[in-house]
Amino acid sequence: MKKNFKPTNPLVGALFTDLYELTMAYGYWKAGIDQDHAVFDLFFRHCPFGGEFTVYAGLEENLRLVSNFHFRKSDIEHLEQVAMPGLEPEFYKYLETLDFSGTKIYAPREGTLVFPRIPLLRVEGPLVMGQILETAALNQTNYPTLIATNAARMRLAAGPNKLMVEFGLRRSQGPDGGISASRYAYIGGFDGTSNVLAGQLFGIPEKGTMAHSFAQAFTSLAKLKTPILKDKSGKEHDFVGLVLKIRNELGFTQTNDGELAAFIAYAQAFPNNFLALVDTYNTLESGVPNFICVATALSLLGYKPIGVRIDSGDLAKLSKQIRRAFETGGYSYGVDLFKQSIFASNSINEKILRSLNEQEHEINGFGIGENLVTCQAQPALGGVYKLVEINGRSRRKISEDTVQSKSAGKTTIPGRKTAYRLFGKNGKPLADIMTGASEAAPKAGEKTFCINPFDGNIRVHITPSKVLELHELVWDKGKIAVNLPPLKEIRQYVSDQLANMPAEHLRADNPTPYPVWVSQKLYDTTRELLAKETPTREIN
Amino acid sequence: MKKNFKPTNPLVGALFTDLYELTMAYGYWKAGIDQDHAVFDLFFRHCPFGGEFTVYAGLEENLRLVSNFHFRKSDIEHLEQVAMPGLEPEFYKYLETLDFSGTKIYAPREGTLVFPRIPLLRVEGPLVMGQILETAALNQTNYPTLIATNAARMRLAAGPNKLMVEFGLRRSQGPDGGISASRYAYIGGFDGTSNVLAGQLFGIPEKGTMAHSFAQAFTSLAKLKTPILKDKSGKEHDFVGLVLKIRNELGFTQTNDGELAAFIAYAQAFPNNFLALVDTYNTLESGVPNFICVATALSLLGYKPIGVRIDSGDLAKLSKQIRRAFETGGYSYGVDLFKQSIFASNSINEKILRSLNEQEHEINGFGIGENLVTCQAQPALGGVYKLVEINGRSRRKISEDTVQSKSAGKTTIPGRKTAYRLFGKNGKPLADIMTGASEAAPKAGEKTFCINPFDGNIRVHITPSKVLELHELVWDKGKIAVNLPPLKEIRQYVSDQLANMPAEHLRADNPTPYPVWVSQKLYDTTRELLAKETPTREIN
Repeated sequence: MKKNFKPTNPLVGALFTDLYELTMAYGYWKAGIDQDHAVFDLFFRHCPFGGEFTVYAGLEENLRLVSNFHFRKSDIEHLEQVAMPGLEPEFYKYLETLDFSGTKIYAPREGTLVFPRIPLLRVEGPLVMGQILETAALNQTNYPTLIATNAARMRLAAGPNKLMVEFGLRRSQGPDGGISASRYAYIGGFDGTSNVLAGQLFGIPEKGTMAHSFAQAFTSLAKLKTPILKDKSGKEHDFVGLVLKIRNELGFTQTNDGELAAFIAYAQAFPNNFLALVDTYNTLESGVPNFICVATALSLLGYKPIGVRIDSGDLAKLSKQIRRAFETGGYSYGVDLFKQSIFASNSINEKILRSLNEQEHEINGFGIGENLVTCQAQPALGGVYKLVEINGRSRRKISEDTVQSKSAGKTTIPGRKTAYRLFGKNGKPLADIMTGASEAAPKAGEKTFCINPFDGNIRVHITPSKVLELHELVWDKGKIAVNLPPLKEIRQYVSDQLANMPAEHLRADNPTPYPVWVSQKLYDTTRELLAKETPTREIN
Repeated sequence: MKKNFKPTNPLVGALFTDLYELTMAYGYWKAGIDQDHAVFDLFFRHCPFGGEFTVYAGLEENLRLVSNFHFRKSDIEHLEQVAMPGLEPEFYKYLETLDFSGTKIYAPREGTLVFPRIPLLRVEGPLVMGQILETAALNQTNYPTLIATNAARMRLAAGPNKLMVEFGLRRSQGPDGGISASRYAYIGGFDGTSNVLAGQLFGIPEKGTMAHSFAQAFTSLAKLKTPILKDKSGKEHDFVGLVLKIRNELGFTQTNDGELAAFIAYAQAFPNNFLALVDTYNTLESGVPNFICVATALSLLGYKPIGVRIDSGDLAKLSKQIRRAFETGGYSYGVDLFKQSIFASNSINEKILRSLNEQEHEINGFGIGENLVTCQAQPALGGVYKLVEINGRSRRKISEDTVQSKSAGKTTIPGRKTAYRLFGKNGKPLADIMTGASEAAPKAGEKTFCINPFDGNIRVHITPSKVLELHELVWDKGKIAVNLPPLKEIRQYVSDQLANMPAEHLRADNPTPYPVWVSQKLYDTTRELLAKETPTREIN
C-alpha cells in the first residue's frame, strides 16, 4: 500500500461532485432511506472510436478518493451558506459523519480489456454513499478509460517498436487534463511523456529536446559562448571548428547559421542526447545538413547522437528523404548515421499513423499531443452510473429512448451482477458472460448457456477451457482490499491482453464485436422488470 | 488584488511544463544566452468551431502561475535525479534563482473577443523565462479560450433568455478538466454549473436537483417517512393525502408509484425548489402526471414549484407536449402551471440548440455537459507560442508548410507587436490592426493605412471613430500590473462585446471573417525576414 494514499489532485474531495448528488442525499436522508442497501453500476454502452475494445483505467484514483473521503468543515460551510442553505440543521452535521466504511466496491483489475455493459465499478452499500460517489467515479473513469484506449489504439497502429511519446500538455483540458492524459496514455502503451510533473508524480519516463524557438534564439555562430567540447575521455576539442570543417567539406554552404549555432550549443549541453529539431527553416536544405555536421562531429568525439525531429511537412516523404541523407551523411568520416532516429510530431492521429504505414515511412518515433489527449475522434466515453438494485430488488431506468425505439437504447441491465471471461482452447478470450452476482460461476470444461441480453432468440453454449472472474472486491470495510500495481505493471497487463486478443476485435476497420452474453436468469429478470415498470402507453 | 494569489490547482508550479522547456533552458544557460532579451507571442491561427470569433480566457490563472513561480527543492531534486541528471551542478542552483521579476507580459483584457494572429500574451524579458513559460501558458490559454468560445456560441444559439447550466464534470478530462470547464463556460455566458467545487472555488452559481436513481430508489409510496409537509405559514398538512387525492381526481392511475413517492420526498425536502426529472419510466404517461400532482399540491400549500427536467427522447416534441399538459394540469385547482420551467439535457450541442429553435421548442433551460466541456466539434484550439524577437531582432519560423504551399500556412508574424481595435461611426468594431509595438497608434478620426498580412495587394484605408488598444501591461516588475476583475464582470464584458459585434461575424453558417490587418511597416518586416532566412531550394 502506498504511504500517502491521497488523490493525486488535492482538489479532489467531497465537493468534487455535481450538486444534485448532494440534494439527493438530503432527499434520501429526509425520507429516511439514506441507509437503504443500494447497488450502483458504472458502465459504458459502446466502445469508443468505432472500435470493439476498451482499456479500463482510473481505478486507483477512485480508490484514493474513497479512502480519503470526508466533508471538511469548509466544505460543509460552503453547502450551508452557499450551495444548499436553509436545510434542516441536523443534515449538515450528518454530512460530517459520512464515509465509505460501509460500502463495498467491486471492479475489474485496472488495465483490463472491457466491453459494453460490463460493470467497471459495482458499488454496494448505503444508498447515500453510492449516490455521492457518482460524479467523481464517472470523472475518474470516463476520461482515463478513453485515453488509455486511444493510446492503445495508436500503439497498435504504430506497431510495437516505435518510440511513442505523449506531447499533450499544452492542448489538454486544464492542468490535470494534462496530468491525467500522461498517466493513462502510458498505461495504454505510450513510452513516455513530455510532461515533467507527470514524470515526478507517476514515474513516467520524461522526454523532450528542443522547440523551434531554440533554433531561432541563436542568431549566428557568434552567439556561441565557447568553441570547446570535451570528448568522452575528457580531452578538449575545438568542436565548432570541427563542425565547420565538416560543413565546408560536405558543401552545406546554404544552411542557416543560427540553426547550426543552436545545434552546436545543444550538442555542447547534451552531447549524449543530441536530437535536433530540423524544420525551423528548411528541413532538407538546412536542418538535416546542419544535423549531419554536428552529429558527425559528435561521433568523431566518441558520442552517439540520437537523431532528428520533424514537426511539419509531408512526414512520410521527408522521413524517407532524411533516411537517404543519413545514409551518405557521415560516410566520408567513417561515421554511420544511417540508423539515427527520425522522430515525427505534428497533428498525428491514429488514421495518420495507419496512412504513414502504407507510405512505408522511415519514422522511428512519434510525439503525439492534441489528438491523443483530446481524443479528437471521440472526446468522451459516455460512461454512466446507474442504480441497479435497492434492498435486494432489481431496479432499472426505462428511458424515453427505450420506449420509442425497438433497440436496447439506453436501457440498463438490472441487479447485482458479475462477469466472467471465457477462454477457448487456444488460450484466447472467446466471450464474456454477465450473471447475477449470486449465481454459480461458469466452470472450465463445462457447458455454459449464454443468451444475448437484448434478443432472447440469440443463444449459444460455450465450453470454456478457462474462466476468469472479471470483478474483484477492491474496497471493503473502509480499506483498499487489493494490491494496487505500479503503472508499469498495468501497462504490461494491457499489452499482454492485446497480444492475446483475436485480431478481429482489434482491427481499425469494421472490427467484429466481442460477444458479451448474459445468463438465462439475468435475461429473465431484465425482461420481467421492463414489462412490470413500463406502463402501456395510451396513444390517441 | 486577491489575498491568496496562487494557481487554483496546487499542482500548477514550475514542473507543470514540457521537459524540452527545461532542456532548452540548460542549453541557453550553457551557451550564455539565457538572459538575452526575447519576445514570445502566444496566438492562434484559426477561430475554433468553424466560426469567426474567439473569446479570450485564461489570463488570471496564467498570472497566478507567474506570481508564484519558483523551483522548489523537490522540483530541483526531481530534475537532478530523474529528469535531467548529469548536467553541470551550477545549473541546478541557477534554477533556484529563476523567477519572472525581469519579465513584462502584455495581454488583452480577459474576455476580449479576439481574432487569428492577435497575440493573446506577449512575453518580454530574459529568453530563459519566456521559454519556461511556454507550456503552462499554452495549457492555461488554449482550453480556457476554447471552452469560453464554445459556451458563447451555445449561448448565442440558445438565445439570451434561456437558463444554461454546465453539466460536464463527469465527462471532462480529469478532475480539473471539469473545474476549468465550469469556470470558462461561465465566462462564455452560461448561468451556472452542476460542479460544487467550481461553485466553492469561483463563486459560480450551483445548480442541480435529481438523477434517475432518485426516482428509482423509492420503490413505493410506503417508502415515505411521513405524509406531512408544513405550508408556508408553518401549518402541517397531509401532503401525501393531498397529492393522492389530486392524482385520483385527475385520473392519473397508471403512473409509477415509486416515482411519485420520489417526487413527494423531493418536494418535502425542497418545497421551494421543486424540479422533477420526469423521464425515468415514461415522460408523458408517468413523470409529467406525477409532477402535476405534486406541483399542484405544493402550490395549494403556498409554494412555487420550478418545473421539470427531461433527459431523453425527442426534446422539442416532448417539450411541446409537456407545455400542453401544464396548461390544463392544475387548472381545476386554480393552480397555474403553464409557466413552469422545462429543462432539457441529453447530448445537447450547438447544432441541436439551433435545430430545437427551428422546431419551436418550449424548453426554458438547458443542461449541457459532454459537448460543452469536451468541445466535441473541435476539441483543441491549437494556440501556439513563438519566439518573435531576440535582442531587438525580429525572428520567425519558416515551417515546411510555408515553403511547400503558397498560403500563409504556419508562418509567424515576427517582431514585438501590439494591436488596436478600430470602431466605426455606429460604435461597432470594423477591424483590428497589428503594428510594431513602437509604431504610433492609429488615431480616431484619422486615416489608417491597413494591409493584408499575407497579400500586399489587399489594402484599405480605415478612418476609425474610436480606437481601442487591445494589449495592456498585465505583469511588470514582479507584480500583477492590472486589476483582475471578478468572473461575473468578465462574463458581462463578453456579453457586451457580443451584443456590439456585427452579426455577420457571429453567425453559425458561413460567417464573414473579421478583418485583421497589419501596418505597412509590419508587413515589410515580415516579407524581408522570409526572403532573408529561407534558402532558395535546390530541386534536382
